Amino acid sequence: MTSGPIARPGDAIGILGGGQLGRMLAMAAADLGLDVHIFTPEADSPAARVAKRAWVADWNDTAALKEFAASIVAATLEFENVPVAAADLIEAAGKPMRPNGRTLERTQDRLAEKMFLREIGIEPAPFARVDEPDDIQKALDSLGGNGVLKSRFSGYDGKGQVRLKGKAPANAWADVGAGPSLVEAWIEHDREISVIAARGSDGAFVAFDPPENDHSGGILRRSVFPSSAPQGVLDEAVRLTKRLAEALDYVGVLALELFLTRDGKLLANEFAPRVHNSGHWTQDACRTGQFEQHIRAVCGWPLGDPTRHSDGEMINLLGEDVLGWESYLAEGAKLHLYGKRHAANGRKMGHVTRLRPRS
Amino acid sequence: MTSGPIARPGDAIGILGGGQLGRMLAMAAADLGLDVHIFTPEADSPAARVAKRAWVADWNDTAALKEFAASIVAATLEFENVPVAAADLIEAAGKPMRPNGRTLERTQDRLAEKMFLREIGIEPAPFARVDEPDDIQKALDSLGGNGVLKSRFSGYDGKGQVRLKGKAPANAWADVGAGPSLVEAWIEHDREISVIAARGSDGAFVAFDPPENDHSGGILRRSVFPSSAPQGVLDEAVRLTKRLAEALDYVGVLALELFLTRDGKLLANEFAPRVHNSGHWTQDACRTGQFEQHIRAVCGWPLGDPTRHSDGEMINLLGEDVLGWESYLAEGAKLHLYGKRHAANGRKMGHVTRLRPRS
Repeated sequence: MTSGPIARPGDAIGILGGGQLGRMLAMAAADLGLDVHIFTPEADSPAARVAKRAWVADWNDTAALKEFAASIVAATLEFENVPVAAADLIEAAGKPMRPNGRTLERTQDRLAEKMFLREIGIEPAPFARVDEPDDIQKALDSLGGNGVLKSRFSGYDGKGQVRLKGKAPANAWADVGAGPSLVEAWIEHDREISVIAARGSDGAFVAFDPPENDHSGGILRRSVFPSSAPQGVLDEAVRLTKRLAEALDYVGVLALELFLTRDGKLLANEFAPRVHNSGHWTQDACRTGQFEQHIRAVCGWPLGDPTRHSDGEMINLLGEDVLGWESYLAEGAKLHLYGKRHAANGRKMGHVTRLRPRS
Repeated sequence: MTSGPIARPGDAIGILGGGQLGRMLAMAAADLGLDVHIFTPEADSPAARVAKRAWVADWNDTAALKEFAASIVAATLEFENVPVAAADLIEAAGKPMRPNGRTLERTQDRLAEKMFLREIGIEPAPFARVDEPDDIQKALDSLGGNGVLKSRFSGYDGKGQVRLKGKAPANAWADVGAGPSLVEAWIEHDREISVIAARGSDGAFVAFDPPENDHSGGILRRSVFPSSAPQGVLDEAVRLTKRLAEALDYVGVLALELFLTRDGKLLANEFAPRVHNSGHWTQDACRTGQFEQHIRAVCGWPLGDPTRHSDGEMINLLGEDVLGWESYLAEGAKLHLYGKRHAANGRKMGHVTRLRPRS
C-alpha cells in the first residue's frame, strides 16, 4: 500500500462513472482544490457538468481510457460495476486506482462477496447458490421457504431480484437473467443499519455514526441518523467494518450493510467499495462528509473529522418525488438534486436532509 | 420586483466572474440541480472548472455577452466591479440580473455608497471628498489628521489605498490613481463585525449570526463566529442591514461591514452586493451557507435555514499560506482551496474553517 500524498491541490484526479455519486465526489474534490476528470459512456452526465473535463466513451474504448489515465494522477470510481479491465488499465498506466480491480472482483460476484465476508468472520445472512433453474426451489427450501433470488453478477436498487415465498414461480430464473444467481434467506430483521467508514493510505480507520435504513422494493428510501440501536451493537458493527476494510487492504470510503435480527444478531447484507446512498446525510450533518472523506483517502491525505453536529433523516427523492422540490426548499430542508434530465420511475433524482440539533 | 421562481432545477443560470466566489456559487447551484454558465475574461478560471460551460471573453464583447444571456434563464455576479453595461445587457436580453446595474452603480463609487448609506440612516465612518491633490491634506485635517485615502472607483483588498497620519505624503495622489477619491477617518474601533444576510424575491429577510473580523493590510485575515459583541449591538447591526436591503429592493445575499467604536457606536464601513469573504464559514457552520442562500434568492426560491450548528473561526489562506494545506487537513479543519494556479503574495488562495460545538 502506498502511504502519503499521491495528489496535490491543483492536480487532476479521475472518476470512473458519471452519476450522482461521481457528481458529489467531483464537487468535494474541487472544494479541496483538485481538478476532476470524468470517464463515462453517458453524454451530458450529472458528474461531467461539475467537472473540468469529461471523456464520453465506452468502457472498452482502450484508447480513450489511456488518454484519460494520462491526464490524471490517480483515479477512483463511483459504482462497483465498472469493468475490472478498465480499472486495471488505469493501474497499468501507472496511476493509482482506489479501489482497484482486485477489490472490484470481490464485489461484482455476490457469491464471492458473501464467501469472503464469512471467511473473515463477518456472518452474512444465510444464502444458497443457484447455477441452474432446478436449484432455485432446493435453495429456497433449504432456507426455510422465504427468500430473495438475485443474479450473482448484476443488478442494483432491486433490479434483477425476485422475492420468493413457498413455491418459486416458473419465471424466476428468466427474471434474474437466466444465469448464475443465489437465494438469500428473508431475514425478519428488527432493523437495517449501515456503517459508512473510511480507511486512509496510512491504515487509519474512521467511521461515521451508523444510520438506520428503510428500504422498499429493494431501494433505499430513508436513513435516520443516528441509529437508535444499542451502542454495543453499533460498536460491533463498526468493528466488523474495520475488519472488512483491513482484510481488503482498502483505501477510501466503503459501506457495510447489516441486518440487526430480532434476537439481536448482526448479519451482513452486502458491502459497497464506494461512497454510499445511506451516507448522503454526512455532508450536511458531519464536519467532514463521506465525499470529502473518500477524496482525502484516495489522494493519500489525512482523513477528516467525522464528528456529527446534527441529528436527522435523509429521504431519497425517487422518480417524480423530485417534483416536490419547492416544498422541500420551503420547509428549510437541505435539498440535493443530481441534475438528471428524466425522472424515470424509481430513479434516484436527489435527496433531502432534515436536520435538528444533536440530542 | 418579480416574486416566485424564475428558474427551475435543470435550468442554466449565469454567473458573471470566474473567481473563488463564482466557484463556490457554482457548486451550490449544482447541488440544487442547476446547470451553471460562467462569463469571465480569465482563461482556466476557478469557477469555470466546476461549471457546465464558460464564455471566456472581455466585458465589452457584446456578441459574447448576448450569446451567454441567451443560454441562461437568470444571472448573478461574483464581484461588484462587473461593468454596469454588462449587467444591463443581460437585463436587456430579458434575463433577470440579480443584483442589477442600478445596485452596482451605488457600490462602484465609494462616495455614492457612503452618501446613500447616510441617506437611509446608516451612519458611515466620517469621510471627506477629494477631487484634486490639494484636497487631500484639507480632508485629512478635517477628519482629525488620521485616515485612509481611497480611490472612489476602484481597488479592493487594500489595493489603491494609502494610510495617512498627520501630513499626507506627496505621492499619495498618484498612489490612488490620481483621480476622484476620498479620505476616510481612521476609526479607533473596538472591533469590526459584518452582517451577511439574504433578501428573497418575496421580501423575506434572513441574516446569519454576525461574525467578527480581523484585517491586516486591508485584507480580511480571520472571522470569528459568532461575534462576542453584546446581543443588542448585533441585533442593531442586523436591523441596519435589513434597512439597507429594503432600500435597495435587493434580492440575494449582501454584506454590511460595520465598525463597533470604543464608545459602543456602530459605523458603516462598506457594503457588498454579493456573497462575502467574512461569510465563508457559513457553508461549514450553518444549515444553509451563504452560497446556497444567494442561489435560492436569485432563483426566486424560498430562503434556507441559517441556523448555526457550530462555533469557530475562518482563516484566509493568502499567497504561500496555501503551502500549509497538509497541516490543515491533518488537524481536522475544513479546507477550501480555490484552484488558483499561482500563489501570488496576498492573493486569496483558499480558506480554512475550524469548528467546535455551539456553546
